[in-house]
Amino acid sequence: MTESASTPARVDGPPKVTGAAQYTADIRLPGMLHAKVLRSPHAHARLISVDASRARAVPGVHAVLTRDDLDGVSAYGYFVKDQPVVAIDKVRYVGDVVAAVAAEDEATALAALARITVEYEVLPSLPDIGTALSPDASELFEQAPPGVVPPFGPGVTATLRPRRNVCYEFQYETGPDSAWDECDHIFTDTFRYSRSNHFHLEPFVTVADVRGDRIEIWSSTQNPFPLRKELARVLGTTESKIRVNVPYVGGGFGSKNNCRTEPIAILLSRLSGRPVRFCLTTEEGFLTMSQHAAVVTVTTGVRADGTFVARESKILLDSGAYSDASPLVAQKSGYRMPGAYRWKHIRTSCECVMTTTTPAGPFRGYGAPQVAWASESQVDMIARRLGIDPYELRIKNFKALGEPYLPGESSVDSDMARGLDVVADELGYHTRERLPNRGMGLAASLKDGGGMNKPATARVKIASSGDVYLSCGTIEIGQGAHTALTQVVVDVLGCPRDKVGYAPVNTDATPFDHGTNASSGVAVMGQAVQFAAEDARDKVLAFAAGQLDCKPDDLTLEGWAVRLGDEVTPLAPMITAAFGNTGFEFSGEGYCKAVVTPDAPLVAESVFWENSWAGAEVEVDPDTGKVTVLQLVVSSDVGKAINALTCRGQDEGCAIMGYAQALFEEMRFSPEGVLLNGEALDYRVPLAEDLPERFVSLTQEQGHGPGRLGAKGAGEGAIIPLAAAIANAVQDAVGVRITELPLSPQRVFAALSTAEKPSTENHQEQA
Amino acid sequence: MTESASTPARVDGPPKVTGAAQYTADIRLPGMLHAKVLRSPHAHARLISVDASRARAVPGVHAVLTRDDLDGVSAYGYFVKDQPVVAIDKVRYVGDVVAAVAAEDEATALAALARITVEYEVLPSLPDIGTALSPDASELFEQAPPGVVPPFGPGVTATLRPRRNVCYEFQYETGPDSAWDECDHIFTDTFRYSRSNHFHLEPFVTVADVRGDRIEIWSSTQNPFPLRKELARVLGTTESKIRVNVPYVGGGFGSKNNCRTEPIAILLSRLSGRPVRFCLTTEEGFLTMSQHAAVVTVTTGVRADGTFVARESKILLDSGAYSDASPLVAQKSGYRMPGAYRWKHIRTSCECVMTTTTPAGPFRGYGAPQVAWASESQVDMIARRLGIDPYELRIKNFKALGEPYLPGESSVDSDMARGLDVVADELGYHTRERLPNRGMGLAASLKDGGGMNKPATARVKIASSGDVYLSCGTIEIGQGAHTALTQVVVDVLGCPRDKVGYAPVNTDATPFDHGTNASSGVAVMGQAVQFAAEDARDKVLAFAAGQLDCKPDDLTLEGWAVRLGDEVTPLAPMITAAFGNTGFEFSGEGYCKAVVTPDAPLVAESVFWENSWAGAEVEVDPDTGKVTVLQLVVSSDVGKAINALTCRGQDEGCAIMGYAQALFEEMRFSPEGVLLNGEALDYRVPLAEDLPERFVSLTQEQGHGPGRLGAKGAGEGAIIPLAAAIANAVQDAVGVRITELPLSPQRVFAALSTAEKPSTENHQEQA
Repeated sequence: MTESASTPARVDGPPKVTGAAQYTADIRLPGMLHAKVLRSPHAHARLISVDASRARAVPGVHAVLTRDDLDGVSAYGYFVKDQPVVAIDKVRYVGDVVAAVAAEDEATALAALARITVEYEVLPSLPDIGTALSPDASELFEQAPPGVVPPFGPGVTATLRPRRNVCYEFQYETGPDSAWDECDHIFTDTFRYSRSNHFHLEPFVTVADVRGDRIEIWSSTQNPFPLRKELARVLGTTESKIRVNVPYVGGGFGSKNNCRTEPIAILLSRLSGRPVRFCLTTEEGFLTMSQHAAVVTVTTGVRADGTFVARESKILLDSGAYSDASPLVAQKSGYRMPGAYRWKHIRTSCECVMTTTTPAGPFRGYGAPQVAWASESQVDMIARRLGIDPYELRIKNFKALGEPYLPGESSVDSDMARGLDVVADELGYHTRERLPNRGMGLAASLKDGGGMNKPATARVKIASSGDVYLSCGTIEIGQGAHTALTQVVVDVLGCPRDKVGYAPVNTDATPFDHGTNASSGVAVMGQAVQFAAEDARDKVLAFAAGQLDCKPDDLTLEGWAVRLGDEVTPLAPMITAAFGNTGFEFSGEGYCKAVVTPDAPLVAESVFWENSWAGAEVEVDPDTGKVTVLQLVVSSDVGKAINALTCRGQDEGCAIMGYAQALFEEMRFSPEGVLLNGEALDYRVPLAEDLPERFVSLTQEQGHGPGRLGAKGAGEGAIIPLAAAIANAVQDAVGVRITELPLSPQRVFAALSTAEKPSTENHQEQA
Repeated sequence: MTESASTPARVDGPPKVTGAAQYTADIRLPGMLHAKVLRSPHAHARLISVDASRARAVPGVHAVLTRDDLDGVSAYGYFVKDQPVVAIDKVRYVGDVVAAVAAEDEATALAALARITVEYEVLPSLPDIGTALSPDASELFEQAPPGVVPPFGPGVTATLRPRRNVCYEFQYETGPDSAWDECDHIFTDTFRYSRSNHFHLEPFVTVADVRGDRIEIWSSTQNPFPLRKELARVLGTTESKIRVNVPYVGGGFGSKNNCRTEPIAILLSRLSGRPVRFCLTTEEGFLTMSQHAAVVTVTTGVRADGTFVARESKILLDSGAYSDASPLVAQKSGYRMPGAYRWKHIRTSCECVMTTTTPAGPFRGYGAPQVAWASESQVDMIARRLGIDPYELRIKNFKALGEPYLPGESSVDSDMARGLDVVADELGYHTRERLPNRGMGLAASLKDGGGMNKPATARVKIASSGDVYLSCGTIEIGQGAHTALTQVVVDVLGCPRDKVGYAPVNTDATPFDHGTNASSGVAVMGQAVQFAAEDARDKVLAFAAGQLDCKPDDLTLEGWAVRLGDEVTPLAPMITAAFGNTGFEFSGEGYCKAVVTPDAPLVAESVFWENSWAGAEVEVDPDTGKVTVLQLVVSSDVGKAINALTCRGQDEGCAIMGYAQALFEEMRFSPEGVLLNGEALDYRVPLAEDLPERFVSLTQEQGHGPGRLGAKGAGEGAIIPLAAAIANAVQDAVGVRITELPLSPQRVFAALSTAEKPSTENHQEQA
């Protein structure tokens, strides 16, 4: 809401706008080869034979990788290790990698791929959840791949392969089942969430340089340390032999969380003895990772006065052909079903359904957008069914500030009602004029952030000159982490921003970090950086106190000098006198991690909640079904803004990603499992002209963020309530309830054509 | 003496022998240009004009650097900032850099250089110390360059520009002048030390990549942190804008201690907007840095029984055209004059004489070889004059183990007599048969090591897997630092060597270190690494104790598990449970620095002394003057050997460098100041066939090294006594005393021809 926080310009701005910034795709090593892969044209087929001999003979080809070259190489995945580096027994989606070639240039590699002969035995495809779950569906994995389920807190059950073509099921229950008896109404509705592509501008890319048993990679990854761990396991080596360097990353939105281009680049480098660059095209990005499409069925029991009582949900995630992070997304989806509201009873399950489509994995919001789409749509539907204003129904049922999210969990750290008012007021919700085909909708969401149980460490060095070097594993992925973290350092040390350098990330030297995800860059790493800067500052003061024969507490930093009463003594000469002409550096470390209590089923103490609100005013053209968003208002509570401009940037980018999913984007597959719109032209990313006519983002600083820093994460909140806010506005405008995304003109027009009355066709009232 | 310590093979062996190891010269960046420089053909000339316009017009040339492009750029140097990046008012030696060009390739750069027109006004050259000090010599620096003299302890006087063409004079005096009255004999002798080239196999080379105001370099340097500091000053920027990366370095021997190729590479990159590689040829190396030639006059007063009483020395170092580290070398030279012996009175002075020759700077032994050549030659001469066996005279006068080196200084940490016995016995000194033209000689030396007042810090990270990452600024320059430091880690943590990775050195992330010099890699950094590993281990044990509800002291590390009584609990699952699936890393820091006391004139407490002994048996061919070394025995006391094989390697390499200076190597200049043998063929590096017929090195572990590690530095000791041991053997063989190096056949033959009697022509007895 305020922009009280300072908003200096981004530290990565000048290098990025001048082209000086280096991304992985810019890395060139002497003798570097280029990799390309052969992909399956079939959605599901047994691999009878792979003959790469003709490819190996192509001049300029230095290495060919097929299933025959996987000795000692394991499959990858988060809980379930089911994705081989190249296909072994089967291919499981159109685009599955069958072979890879490293050659002098990409054209030669492509020419060699054309000379690889593959014999397939085609099997029935499983293009969607329904087909995959049908009793006579073919089985994607005949044998169970290795997998483990980590232990959880009370109320949680997690199961591997609970049924055919389901790799994982998450279940959670709390509160007495008898709560249903208190309900005056029980509503069941089903919602469909379409699948999006992450559409990060920088492609998946790795440069690998294997020298003897040492593996060095530069990679566009969000998670250098977990990646190192997984690569060591996949390659059958030890972590200390692998160095992961991460330059600037050009967007990821969750997709760059695990092995992508890394194993193939490494294996080709090992085979060829040369550095190998493996850079996917945008089209190949569509064949590599996607968001989860979902079918969400929600049953909600309420009292006649609108008080929420009990909720049961059944979530089916379309996990695609390999499990990747699906089990983790399933946990989050299932556990986020209660939303911002108070319940006596919750029962939720979420299944990961395997289909012969692009694997689905982490995506901004991490399972929350799918369930918020269902939940926040149904809240409006219930309000209308009960004749209560949806705004009022939300206000009535919000958890209070400080109320535990669920038993054993940390407490909600925003005043949800106050947040909703910010959006409703800006939108003019309460004073709106009723006009034909125009309507307004609201939605609110809440998601745990910061990474459950995930540690971050940081180091700050201060040189004799007062120059500062920040070293931490948070990747600058476009979110402005360098800017915010630099500011944290500046706030502690009082040094000019110009004096703060950012150490390059490599896993050998960089302090451990769990990864750049879960909106943890400022809320978790920010605290670690704060502690590191304070530790370094305290060491400087202790040193100076020793030199000046006083107590450290008597001293304050003032520029690169210490003040003792009225006396200001410059530090540089003091350091030179004590440490010689070469000087010294004072090094401080900081550490931050959410505390997990045994009572917490899945989240933890002292993380933050990423709370966002959205409001939309739409006009629906009844002749075409086109939805025009006249106003879009989004707001997130960041606790305390470190850099207000960057918070706005994150919130607005996130909101527009949700806006795109609400109205435009959708990966569409043919019944044969062929992706129909897997490239930039056909895949309908919104253009500038598609943006809302009025777009307002309001950063709230409610002040309940963790630690002394008080900053909560930003950047995943606004995507969550977006689609429901627009669908709610559409219903407000034209009385039809759309339960499937995106709200394309075709779909809205079809709904307008078939529905006479609003919101009756979908729900079954059971009580 | 023993090889009790474990001697695992070098960790850098496999990458180096397979070619996988990367040196700066291997770095290639996209769009990288190549630099070449125009050098002065005159030893001394005023620069009238430099016209580079035709060079700028050469196709493929992207930047030209002349004195017109030095806005905001300062000169460099240690105490005295007198060396401009390119010549401004004058050139001061043949090879002085006048202009630089960056072009698409080196050939184009060379072609462009040929099109630069320079007008010189030639001035008289100062090819040697004598000419430079003559009253009518021209003055190399008409104006005093900026310089400061740091404060010293008692007895020291340091003066900038004490007289014409002397940039610095160091003086030290201790003990009563009246000591001279106790002397029965006073001998004065003068010795000349010739100038060597460092002859490091890897040339001087820098790759610079300037992007906006950010400067990143890869450089073959021994001192990344001091280099960063000096570059910031030279370039007028702040340290945090400069990142210095240092890959493997292929030898330096002191020459890579300060700005060499760096400023030109950086300025050309800044001018061109492209990365620039500036790699010198071997021939250019000869024109860049050298050892100090010296004229050393020693006056020694002794009692009739051979007891040493008083010594005065006057040392003139040929500093070449720019001061570089000459003042520091002068301090060390002067202060090392007492050698291993006990004195009542010491007075020493050392002047840095500027000549129009290649600048001289740090060189293995750092001024000690020059003065040991004089001192240890004179000890033998005095012994013969007094009719005492040189062995006995040394034994009689050695300082005792534990005796302070000089008042206020730390104590000698070897039994010097015991050390000499090791060599004498191995050589068969006491039992030798007198044969014509055969003789034996001994010498002993002692030098402070570890870097006065210089801090080293290190960090050790231990990942969840038990993999270890060592991060420290000690450069692997061929000395085996990685091997020894890895072993220190392994000794503390008990992990397999294979599990220890070595983080790449860059100044943003690497813990501060003063530099890879002064034999400090193991003795100082080794302790820092030990402390860091112990700190990390203690953190692991504290964590485990918290998990197991016991005290850290009850636990011991056992593999990657902890033992509590009979129970052994693996750590990896414990860490995963506490920190989540992404794991964690425990990070420890270590710090080590010599303590300087106000009483110490120049050295310090708790450093170590690098003590070495050499013995030679020679046969001199009276017809040719050729000296054949039949036996060479060297020994150094390393306190405790971390890796015995590496200690031997250091000692033997060092001894052979001394052997080369004794018999072969010498940079020779014409009266016009032209280097006559500045390339690999003419510069007489010993070949395998030149090596001694019997060559034995014996590592002593006398056990008095610093800290719990107990390791002293190695690698600079054996060069120091080498030349004197051989000259002493020559005198023993044929009765002539050669006082000038190298002991070439011509010089020995000439001495044999003119000298009837040994050792009378050189000394003047004053008492």
